[in-house]
Amino acid sequence: MQTIRIGIAGYGNVGKGAALAVSTAPDMELKAIFTRRKPESIKTINDSISVLPIEKAASMKNEIDVMLLCGGSATDLPEQAPYFASMFNTVDSYDNHAKIPEYMAAVDAAAVKTTAIISAGWDPGPFSMMRSLFESIIPDGATYTFWGKGVSQGHSDAIRRIDGVKHAVQYTVPIDSAVQAVRSGGRPDLKARDKMKRDCYVVIENGADKNLIEESIKNMPHYFADYDTSVSFIDMEEFNKNHTEMPHGGMVLRSGNTGKNKQVMEFSLNLESNPEFTGSIMTAYARAAYKMSKEGLYGAKTVLDVPLHYLSEKDRATLIKELL
Amino acid sequence: MQTIRIGIAGYGNVGKGAALAVSTAPDMELKAIFTRRKPESIKTINDSISVLPIEKAASMKNEIDVMLLCGGSATDLPEQAPYFASMFNTVDSYDNHAKIPEYMAAVDAAAVKTTAIISAGWDPGPFSMMRSLFESIIPDGATYTFWGKGVSQGHSDAIRRIDGVKHAVQYTVPIDSAVQAVRSGGRPDLKARDKMKRDCYVVIENGADKNLIEESIKNMPHYFADYDTSVSFIDMEEFNKNHTEMPHGGMVLRSGNTGKNKQVMEFSLNLESNPEFTGSIMTAYARAAYKMSKEGLYGAKTVLDVPLHYLSEKDRATLIKELL
Repeated sequence: MQTIRIGIAGYGNVGKGAALAVSTAPDMELKAIFTRRKPESIKTINDSISVLPIEKAASMKNEIDVMLLCGGSATDLPEQAPYFASMFNTVDSYDNHAKIPEYMAAVDAAAVKTTAIISAGWDPGPFSMMRSLFESIIPDGATYTFWGKGVSQGHSDAIRRIDGVKHAVQYTVPIDSAVQAVRSGGRPDLKARDKMKRDCYVVIENGADKNLIEESIKNMPHYFADYDTSVSFIDMEEFNKNHTEMPHGGMVLRSGNTGKNKQVMEFSLNLESNPEFTGSIMTAYARAAYKMSKEGLYGAKTVLDVPLHYLSEKDRATLIKELL
Repeated sequence: MQTIRIGIAGYGNVGKGAALAVSTAPDMELKAIFTRRKPESIKTINDSISVLPIEKAASMKNEIDVMLLCGGSATDLPEQAPYFASMFNTVDSYDNHAKIPEYMAAVDAAAVKTTAIISAGWDPGPFSMMRSLFESIIPDGATYTFWGKGVSQGHSDAIRRIDGVKHAVQYTVPIDSAVQAVRSGGRPDLKARDKMKRDCYVVIENGADKNLIEESIKNMPHYFADYDTSVSFIDMEEFNKNHTEMPHGGMVLRSGNTGKNKQVMEFSLNLESNPEFTGSIMTAYARAAYKMSKEGLYGAKTVLDVPLHYLSEKDRATLIKELL
């Protein structure tokens, strides 16, 4: 089997996770990392990996089979994905759910002779696959997605923007009684507040007003006002000791019926490293993008379009024999 | 959208489950049930459904889009599946894991101008999908499949064949400490006995020897000897009250690592009716068989080959917008 030559564009947390996954895949070679930062400022997991300015990517069109796009969904990907998809097979983890159709159309228009798998993180990603699979099997039912326990970067950032806050981390925590209600076959009507709570750990600047900060967090619209939020003030030492990892996880549950019988399906993730897991999913889908492009299956694809056997290092016959 | 016309061949528990699922699907019509029994002996869920001798199926080639093959895996399907696949798009839930490649080859040879989706129950089925997906995402790990709590028909039948046994039901029960060990990120070396135990409820004939029956069960090779087995003797009244349902379920867990970080994935089912759930999965895959045959994707296919969007009543764009 030919080695799949991978490029990584964007070397933040997800890019590092992808580099780790690609480096340990026996059927892949990590060809280069592309960055907008100074290449010499980047410390890779392995000294033999080239780090190049992102402008150099186009010149490596024939040396890279799949480019993993590890930039952010807010501004990087909408700009970068069509550009890269015009030259490379790509995989990204674009996660702005509301804008996926628009994003997909733009990528699809560019992916004329390439395969571009979009939104292949874990939500969107396997969580979306489960929502679709579960609903298709048991149409009479209700699907629930719970996130956590885990760090939400967006919410942590929002706290850090408050005056007087030095460091902060926000954990999204599913509410166990709600999970149990669904798991036991119920179809409760759950508001955001009923499904998840938000626990915040905050390090403040000397002399900052704790009460004011706590109120600013708890009343912040969209981010915290609709949830039960707890705020704990801690010192830098405790922060560095207990709150620098990036765990996450969550569940997709469907509670439904066939006739009078209850049928419950559940998928859950318990991740010590969210970005490494995301990078691992993108790496599996890189294999799919490579194989699909070889078959001429061009254009923008999603996790709902890709047969599972394409993700594996094993060939289809082996998978059917060993895992079916 | 055109209605998908469904036939069901074989009207045991799974056939009845499939009939229920098809009858409630807005995009399907249950055209006929085919049986080897006397058609007039069959009570369908709805009087308008034709029940015909199985030999009549060939004459309805143009009136049925997908035939759901609901016979048994031991003898019915190996004979029936190639026969039906030569005329109809088919879906079956063939579950003899060791013989799948051979079975698939026979069906594939027959499905020249049809789409034949094989082994689309829940294991093989979604359980296989999870084993493949999980391993592809986290190659450094171990996958565990647990079955239960639920009724195993094969084990219940084995008990009923013992002299002096009037009725019996066997529940396969996963061992919680083993599940927890995997769930917490361990990779224990689990023998069959460590993963599941077998609880048997037995009604005996008047005067039968309880000790002898209990020993016969516990020492039965393959079925019980390799497990911790409990035997409870109950009367007919209790049997009819508490042990006539067909619940089942189980879990696929993968415990693995990306670098030093533990990553745990889990899929679980908690089913009040095993045959209705199996029939529901086959019904979702009937939609896939129909759509794939329209696209000329002929031959034998498995759940690892079918993109998820084909299973849904919703079109691809709607799924991407609503569920991705």
